[in-house]
Amino acid sequence: MDIITLGLPDLAAARRFYVDGLGWNPIFEVPGDIVFLQIGHGLVLGLWHADEMERDIDPNAPARPATGPVPMTLAHNVGSDAEVGEVLARAEQAGGTVLKAAQRGEVGFVHGFFADPAGFRWEVAHNPGWVINADGTVSIEPAEPAAVEQVDNAG
Amino acid sequence: MDIITLGLPDLAAARRFYVDGLGWNPIFEVPGDIVFLQIGHGLVLGLWHADEMERDIDPNAPARPATGPVPMTLAHNVGSDAEVGEVLARAEQAGGTVLKAAQRGEVGFVHGFFADPAGFRWEVAHNPGWVINADGTVSIEPAEPAAVEQVDNAG
Repeated sequence: MDIITLGLPDLAAARRFYVDGLGWNPIFEVPGDIVFLQIGHGLVLGLWHADEMERDIDPNAPARPATGPVPMTLAHNVGSDAEVGEVLARAEQAGGTVLKAAQRGEVGFVHGFFADPAGFRWEVAHNPGWVINADGTVSIEPAEPAAVEQVDNAG
Repeated sequence: MDIITLGLPDLAAARRFYVDGLGWNPIFEVPGDIVFLQIGHGLVLGLWHADEMERDIDPNAPARPATGPVPMTLAHNVGSDAEVGEVLARAEQAGGTVLKAAQRGEVGFVHGFFADPAGFRWEVAHNPGWVINADGTVSIEPAEPAAVEQVDNAG
């Protein structure tokens, strides 16, 4: 996958949050229209007007609410338990909302959630079992080995 | 970013679409609970029950609809104009819905959209101006140089 595009009711508010607030650097921008932020290896987060995004798919698309939580989360792993709280605090200072304070979750690692001004939700986690290998593949070592099952990936 | 988690009303239907239909390989799975699919360099798509995802954020979260379009798209770039149509056809065969057939969009390159069974929407595009550099950073060369502006990324 290459791009995640968020459809926003207020592009300027989103830009203030992600660029001015969190300090993420645009790699490409059409002022007032679209902002692209690098968020991973070959991975870009697009900020775009919700109505234009809908019209790009279907010119006759009915208007829909573009605020509030959507059935999706984005996740960012950090390097320590303490950093989870630090990132949540920074998001709050930038105008976001902390939905779940840093705490040890059911699966055994420390995490928390914040929402951006439009309601898109980010998980911030310190999961030592989440390993990105040199070739970019991910290995997951469960915190509770007895409760989960590693799938044979050879097929 | 490390993970995109889709909150699904029907995990089994999503698994049939992404794993059985599209042929994407789980890197980790707890049968009946969660499926992780590798979709990029160090990037994982999580398929999870919508209600469990909500409770993970807030145990008292009210139930919300987990179907239908959300104000977001995911995007996958392919290598040729013809491949755009091929991927859309494969998605349709797998149980998805083509929302926009392969066509040359306003920005000058060929793209189209499909929705998965829960309504999550994917753009499929062949954009020769989308360049992933050796270090993973993305450079975007607009198809219509006169209409857009390259941002200085040195800051």
